[in-house]
Amino acid sequence: MSDKDATVARAVLQQCLGASLMVKPAEEGSEAEYVQIERGMVIYICFFKGATDDILPKMVSSLLNLRLCESSSGKMVSVLDLPGSLLIVPQATLGGRAKGKAMQYHNNVNKEDGLRLYEAFVGLCENELSAKENVKVEHGTYGNRQVLKLDTNGPYTHIMEF
Amino acid sequence: MSDKDATVARAVLQQCLGASLMVKPAEEGSEAEYVQIERGMVIYICFFKGATDDILPKMVSSLLNLRLCESSSGKMVSVLDLPGSLLIVPQATLGGRAKGKAMQYHNNVNKEDGLRLYEAFVGLCENELSAKENVKVEHGTYGNRQVLKLDTNGPYTHIMEF
Repeated sequence: MSDKDATVARAVLQQCLGASLMVKPAEEGSEAEYVQIERGMVIYICFFKGATDDILPKMVSSLLNLRLCESSSGKMVSVLDLPGSLLIVPQATLGGRAKGKAMQYHNNVNKEDGLRLYEAFVGLCENELSAKENVKVEHGTYGNRQVLKLDTNGPYTHIMEF
Repeated sequence: MSDKDATVARAVLQQCLGASLMVKPAEEGSEAEYVQIERGMVIYICFFKGATDDILPKMVSSLLNLRLCESSSGKMVSVLDLPGSLLIVPQATLGGRAKGKAMQYHNNVNKEDGLRLYEAFVGLCENELSAKENVKVEHGTYGNRQVLKLDTNGPYTHIMEF
């Protein structure tokens, strides 16, 4: 993976026609709870050691303005221009490095800072989409199992590092 | 992304409960054709300039033997040990680099070499799984639109570079 010590976050982006994510597991007497979006983009996100809030505005601006989605006319446009919804998935496994057959996650940020950065990232995304009609921002529960269903017309999977 | 000039391939891995991929678009008089797997792993794969067949055995060995999947007992195991099926998705967008708001793919291998490497990669995966029962290798059509549906109990998204 990247040898740049300065890398503090990694995101995987997939456009979708629809996606759903569990935010609360089933318990005795209550069913599991899910959030869902229709057309838009799934953002899998992971922060590394050294990440600070300073990086977040640039990250959000890049991810929402880069032409990562396909419009109905076949042109590549940003999720803001689509316009599409966002499903934000905390995904600590993105920080994995292979050691033998095992994956190690030593470079990931600690849980407390990770949660704070994640919540701030979600908040900035919500701000960016707040003026748009018919789109929304949904997100997973940090530290939870990310039970995901995804339906795409071509995910156009991209990776961005910050 | 990685500044290592030696990086010749990138893969994104997601474990799945089930996944389907279109391999032939609908045409007049014929419906679209899909392949599908049940439990296993989706491998999104992209080759860069400089990639040669020499890298393939190591790639396949790593991706199939790394502990990227969760067993029914909650232990992380390889897709071979799960045992699970594979859905291989050619995904040229993994080579994208941002320039302004646009994504550029100048570092991707040319189409002819990419197709050859992709087919050889699929063949090696098929060999590795051939002795396993109740699992299979399915794959997308190179250069086609990759219409994907994915159902996970936590994708455990990982990125590997070679």
